[in-house]
Amino acid sequence: MTSGQHQTSGRRGIGLDIGGTKIAGAVVQDDGAVLTELVEPTPQQSDAATISKILRGITDRLRQQHPEVVAIGVGAAGIVEWPTGLIRWAPNNAYRDWPVRAELEDATGLPTTVDNDANVAALAEARLGEQRYHDMVLITVGTGIGGGLVLGGSIYRGPTGLGAELGHMIVNPDGPLCGCGNHGCLEAYASGTALTRMAREAATEDPDGLIARLARENGDPVTGEAVTHAAKLGDPTAQALFAELGRWLGVGIASLGNIFELEAVRIGGGLVETGDLLLNPARAAAEQYAYAREARGIPPVLPSTFGSDGGIIGAALLGLDHA
Amino acid sequence: MTSGQHQTSGRRGIGLDIGGTKIAGAVVQDDGAVLTELVEPTPQQSDAATISKILRGITDRLRQQHPEVVAIGVGAAGIVEWPTGLIRWAPNNAYRDWPVRAELEDATGLPTTVDNDANVAALAEARLGEQRYHDMVLITVGTGIGGGLVLGGSIYRGPTGLGAELGHMIVNPDGPLCGCGNHGCLEAYASGTALTRMAREAATEDPDGLIARLARENGDPVTGEAVTHAAKLGDPTAQALFAELGRWLGVGIASLGNIFELEAVRIGGGLVETGDLLLNPARAAAEQYAYAREARGIPPVLPSTFGSDGGIIGAALLGLDHA
Repeated sequence: MTSGQHQTSGRRGIGLDIGGTKIAGAVVQDDGAVLTELVEPTPQQSDAATISKILRGITDRLRQQHPEVVAIGVGAAGIVEWPTGLIRWAPNNAYRDWPVRAELEDATGLPTTVDNDANVAALAEARLGEQRYHDMVLITVGTGIGGGLVLGGSIYRGPTGLGAELGHMIVNPDGPLCGCGNHGCLEAYASGTALTRMAREAATEDPDGLIARLARENGDPVTGEAVTHAAKLGDPTAQALFAELGRWLGVGIASLGNIFELEAVRIGGGLVETGDLLLNPARAAAEQYAYAREARGIPPVLPSTFGSDGGIIGAALLGLDHA
Repeated sequence: MTSGQHQTSGRRGIGLDIGGTKIAGAVVQDDGAVLTELVEPTPQQSDAATISKILRGITDRLRQQHPEVVAIGVGAAGIVEWPTGLIRWAPNNAYRDWPVRAELEDATGLPTTVDNDANVAALAEARLGEQRYHDMVLITVGTGIGGGLVLGGSIYRGPTGLGAELGHMIVNPDGPLCGCGNHGCLEAYASGTALTRMAREAATEDPDGLIARLARENGDPVTGEAVTHAAKLGDPTAQALFAELGRWLGVGIASLGNIFELEAVRIGGGLVETGDLLLNPARAAAEQYAYAREARGIPPVLPSTFGSDGGIIGAALLGLDHA
């Protein structure tokens, strides 16, 4: 968090982050300070018209408090066309071919820039994180796996925004089905969804095990929370699941380290809150599978600086860059 | 080939290509025309001093015929530091930490640029191939797998040249041992070395099969040539090996297509001469594992334009760019 640094002369923009579970908006200064933040749950009915209304509501309220904002930036889960700001498709939302940039510019009169949520979070990390980087990757491990690449100080998104779908690298073509319809994507092995799948298999195999018991106590189906709780209580089955999840994450990190020349790999998303449970096996595999590690070195694997605020901060920075 | 176009006003440079089996040098015009080419086998003793002597010999002979050359470019297998032109390490040559650029500049007085061989071949393909691209990847399938990336019209090599080791993406961490020491790299599944390994296993399993018989007739151990010959004769075992090799290549291509936004994937290296035997299963897998293919499209998978001349042409172009 970077609050408490409000007395600078920097420009201010609105950063909006459209996710599968929540929509966040904030006024952010160009030094990364978050001045005011508003959050709403993503409605079940996540079509373009419904989400548009929420975005306009958040934007209006933020501008009433901060009439000085000069730009809007949006980070959205899914495939975002660049620079048109049309969201073509998103795995966990119902909108398709939605011209977010044009709609927000029409409604607000402010210059608006739209990009993928992990891309903008990577920009925040590279430019304003606890270490500054020219070349880095941010991997968000949540329900899915998102990836943002900063190369030479700029977001790499490909000429029209279709690049950097890092969660869909194939880490084993004979692996489990991914939400995208393919088999063996990194997301199918190393996401929260993968953890839940593995935990359910484990609970079915051992209905008296701690994972199954914790889930029953909460009256829930087996979730990532139950396996996290069990792992922290020392349950070997749950710890083995994290070791496997982390290993696959590390394999993906190693591939990215071999494809790019990176100063660091930062991990964000909900699952990074499990800390070394996930990161230690990821680091081990990232080192094991690094190519020519003595000649090329190995980038450090670290938690992201901004956590879930990376999206709004990065979105605002990008908006200000293009205003 | 681009010979027969010698009457242009373009500048000329020397392109040198240092591979594991041969060293080639040529005078190349900035439109890609190859004026004179010399080739020597890579000596068994592939240390820096030995290779340096060969490079200087080739360069001297080329300059005697073409005193008008203004630059030297070098493409070399291995990890090449940028822009210093120091070759840190190469899998199939003995040289280590060899300052090629400094040596050649001292010896010739010409500005010299050194890069990875697949990088420069990708530049030749993108800039002067039968189609021009801003964003593409060239994968060379030979003894190993090389990869060159052109992004936004320029070679992507990372800030110091350590990037784009595309043959060492992990396509299955539990896969076979790679020459680099890791398991399950693309190179371990889809290179000539992988084909030979698979063919030897097949010949051991079925010593009366066509692959084993063709190898015995030639008095050879089982080689890639034997399996290629057997596949062309319609041997189902040999064709299945190509189908597997091609599938893994296609999985690697799909991953690159998901990570980048590419106009095309071009395939070079010795094995591309097997044509659709390799390319058809590669195309099928590249399509099967493409992420969100309706929203993102699928780049075509095509043989490279320049074949084994891509290295010298691209090296010369890069040299001229930096002269």
